[in-house]
Amino acid sequence: MDGGPQFEPKAAPLGIVCGGGGLPVQVAEAVVRSGRKVFLLGIEGSAGRAIEKFPHAWFRVGQIRRPRSLLQEAGCHELCIVGHLVRPALTALRLDRESLRMLPQFVQLYRGGDDRLLSGVAALVERSLDMRIVGVNEVAPALLAPAGPFGRYAPSMDDQEDIALGLAVLTALGPFDIGQSVIVARRQVLAVEASEGTDGIIERVAALRAKGAISAPPGTGVLVKAPKPQQDIRLDLPAIGLRTVENVAAAGLAGVAVAAQSVLVADADLVAAAADRAKVFVFGVPAPGSG
Amino acid sequence: MDGGPQFEPKAAPLGIVCGGGGLPVQVAEAVVRSGRKVFLLGIEGSAGRAIEKFPHAWFRVGQIRRPRSLLQEAGCHELCIVGHLVRPALTALRLDRESLRMLPQFVQLYRGGDDRLLSGVAALVERSLDMRIVGVNEVAPALLAPAGPFGRYAPSMDDQEDIALGLAVLTALGPFDIGQSVIVARRQVLAVEASEGTDGIIERVAALRAKGAISAPPGTGVLVKAPKPQQDIRLDLPAIGLRTVENVAAAGLAGVAVAAQSVLVADADLVAAAADRAKVFVFGVPAPGSG
Repeated sequence: MDGGPQFEPKAAPLGIVCGGGGLPVQVAEAVVRSGRKVFLLGIEGSAGRAIEKFPHAWFRVGQIRRPRSLLQEAGCHELCIVGHLVRPALTALRLDRESLRMLPQFVQLYRGGDDRLLSGVAALVERSLDMRIVGVNEVAPALLAPAGPFGRYAPSMDDQEDIALGLAVLTALGPFDIGQSVIVARRQVLAVEASEGTDGIIERVAALRAKGAISAPPGTGVLVKAPKPQQDIRLDLPAIGLRTVENVAAAGLAGVAVAAQSVLVADADLVAAAADRAKVFVFGVPAPGSG
Repeated sequence: MDGGPQFEPKAAPLGIVCGGGGLPVQVAEAVVRSGRKVFLLGIEGSAGRAIEKFPHAWFRVGQIRRPRSLLQEAGCHELCIVGHLVRPALTALRLDRESLRMLPQFVQLYRGGDDRLLSGVAALVERSLDMRIVGVNEVAPALLAPAGPFGRYAPSMDDQEDIALGLAVLTALGPFDIGQSVIVARRQVLAVEASEGTDGIIERVAALRAKGAISAPPGTGVLVKAPKPQQDIRLDLPAIGLRTVENVAAAGLAGVAVAAQSVLVADADLVAAAADRAKVFVFGVPAPGSG
């Protein structure tokens, strides 16, 4: 450490706290490609071994002192938090002295779902580590959905009407901090996400369709996904990936519309290839309220 | 027929087209109690034998001439349509000449869920039978939820805030013809009904709660149910019953709030007793937009 450029946040390595799934590595790759160094902090039990191809270390949920020292040693001033977090059993937590002081806040976090825990940990981390939390949208904008089609297919006129209705529903639900996605088919809203997650609503529509309870024929219907208006996208960027496209195809939907520049697409090439194979579209549309 | 009072709609017997469940008999009993005669037309495969304690006849979905003759013979000018409709297989339909002419409209109906089919049949019936369709709210207002508590329990202050939020969500979704119900717990919207039905969202919350994905503790959360703003409540009055209360209790919710005078309560006494047994509330609140 030479006291020089590492105090310029952009020149200093970016710390990346890594949860599960493929996104942490994809974010790290995109950041490295942009010319910035990275230092990955894997959450034990959540992150995969693939993070080890970058400079890295491991820590456990409940530790504060260790990740702080590691980040300081690596010269990080900015931190990005990416990936799913599997909540360890309370008994498996190794709390250090500082996190013991924060125990009441942790217990509070334990009442929520995974996203809530992740956001909660992020807020605690920002306060206790004195790091600036940055979003994937800032450090790896190449991973965000562009406008227009991924792959070969695009929404029909009917699909476009469904997309417009879906965005209108998401906008109407904006004040209520509900889900990030809806499914609309031929002007009928089939499912609204609240606490069950996007995969949950796709599976539900598949099941309703299988028992003949949906009037719009197979091959119609769009999953529409966009951030909530008040969502802190630094911490909780909506994301789609290969599984989303596969589930959408299995549910007999025509495709997926995502808010361009506001939804993360994990493995964009694989997503485009899967969409082409399944003959569904994945399409970036202007975010509600953006224009 | 003496050309006399039977031409006064209220003096003529009320025709009741009966689908499945206990409601048709309860409506018939309430109408008889109000001093009006009834003539029940059971839909084969849907209505139960219990309707036979009233003047009645049976017909099949797909017949038009027969129910029209039966209603004319009975001197009916007004018709109420109540109960679930089990859609018979297309091959089981016995179409008469008139319904054959309407086949394209029937095929259209077959694409929808049960409620849609019922409403669609109702519209066809009104046109083809020249009957005035009346709602249960008009002929048996005693079956509607009154304001205030059923049984012993009432919403806490927390529950009342959840109810207010639930009504606000339903109002925001009003323009979109989505579901009639939401579940809210401690200011978090857990589930929004779209095409899965009210039992569907209760079961979903039960499952999410069982896997620890809901932050509000067991014993909190309210099912809020009200008609959609543009809903034709003559044909499609929201309803709750014993099963609703049992499901709500099984999902660990605190209770059910329904729009007073706009939601049907099947077996109100049994509902109140079940609510008391399960220590949940069932509570009539002012309908959104009614104040």
